[in-house]
Amino acid sequence: MTWTAPARLELIALQTLPLISAGDDIGQLIVAALERESLKLAAGDVLVLAQKIISKAEGRMVELASVTPSRRARALAQRNGKDPRVIELILRESRKVLRVGKEVLIVEHRSGFILANAGIDQSNVNADGGNGSALLLPEDADASAAKVRRAIGQASGVDCGLMIIDSIGRAWRLGTVGQTLGASGVPMVVDARGRADLFGRKLRATDIGVGDEIAAAASLLMGQANERRPVVLVRGLMAAPEATQLGRDLQRDAREDLFR
Amino acid sequence: MTWTAPARLELIALQTLPLISAGDDIGQLIVAALERESLKLAAGDVLVLAQKIISKAEGRMVELASVTPSRRARALAQRNGKDPRVIELILRESRKVLRVGKEVLIVEHRSGFILANAGIDQSNVNADGGNGSALLLPEDADASAAKVRRAIGQASGVDCGLMIIDSIGRAWRLGTVGQTLGASGVPMVVDARGRADLFGRKLRATDIGVGDEIAAAASLLMGQANERRPVVLVRGLMAAPEATQLGRDLQRDAREDLFR
Repeated sequence: MTWTAPARLELIALQTLPLISAGDDIGQLIVAALERESLKLAAGDVLVLAQKIISKAEGRMVELASVTPSRRARALAQRNGKDPRVIELILRESRKVLRVGKEVLIVEHRSGFILANAGIDQSNVNADGGNGSALLLPEDADASAAKVRRAIGQASGVDCGLMIIDSIGRAWRLGTVGQTLGASGVPMVVDARGRADLFGRKLRATDIGVGDEIAAAASLLMGQANERRPVVLVRGLMAAPEATQLGRDLQRDAREDLFR
Repeated sequence: MTWTAPARLELIALQTLPLISAGDDIGQLIVAALERESLKLAAGDVLVLAQKIISKAEGRMVELASVTPSRRARALAQRNGKDPRVIELILRESRKVLRVGKEVLIVEHRSGFILANAGIDQSNVNADGGNGSALLLPEDADASAAKVRRAIGQASGVDCGLMIIDSIGRAWRLGTVGQTLGASGVPMVVDARGRADLFGRKLRATDIGVGDEIAAAASLLMGQANERRPVVLVRGLMAAPEATQLGRDLQRDAREDLFR
């Protein structure tokens, strides 16, 4: 799809969202927080949500005591030093193990995304110190994004775009960056092929990963540790509500991937 | 280094920078554009520059007619369909070829970064249609960033952070995203290890690639084709001028990389 780059962009982290528990209606809680903070949604706005709050609301927390590691999980645990119960969860959430590193498995998640430890999180997930449970990714982050978007549209009367993101490690580079897991109503991959450049030469191979650029931008405001900022409002993108792309459209097909 | 995530962030693309030619003083041109656009630099601001304008100012344009492809370059050209003279330039700019794809070489650039075609650009580089020349990356993007930062500090009296970025393709995911090539006075990799999470559990392995998140955010405003917006002002980061990290600090050491 085509898209026009904005000349100005503003990002605002919500400050008053309560801690999320299983069953919470995140859409309603976000609209209430926006009102408390005197932020008025406008068409073209995009709300970017940390995956953790979606997973919590969807009840994706698993008690490790309830997990019996398979033989394969125990063997992998011996190789890389991770808790075999966590490895068991990673294997259940994955299609394929790509690499085994120290305390990490790089896998193709069931969603198709390549993720360290299948995106399973043991930090900030509960009040017992985090050793006894793990938080899985949403079952279907694109479906979750569409659902929360609808809830926000109903509660606020404004149809904004919505994204669910996570902090993801990368090949070749240090540091995690925000990347898209699911999306609704936001352009994800913008095709600049065939457009002329400044001097009239046709551009080649210049798909832009706009979805991931938005995710990285919002992630800057979320912080990682004590900051309680799982929701960022992005203003100025003029995202089109009719955008039909999904987070999964950022996946590279395995057959076209030189690095698996 | 440590860093506090901002609660608000504003990004503004400069609109009046002239086209850049070899020998131009980019720092002075940026300060003049800021004044024309009534934008006042403040401490903590970061200016993000597209690599193309640095390469042009530094005279990194090469006429393809002047390039004699080596035997190796001709052999690779037969395999992947690229102009053998461009392949020759890619090889000269690289330490190592990692993958040979259709019309693309993935290489370890002399800087250490993993890049498609060594970051060599044939679009938007000149007025002759772009077929006759190619634009190489800056010799040392971190040194270029420091130099332009100094020039801006002298011309404006404000010591802001400065980054040089490019649109880069990634393993596993579609679409290019803005990534850091060089930087001065901006945090690049923020170490959250050892900080307690919301519930007091110590975070592990959570370095954040803040530099690349800023690069991706700024890239959203630059566009790819006809938009003439190679400079973006980022407000609200409160970047510390004493930050000593460089763009190259975002490189993962080859020995710790599972995907080379």
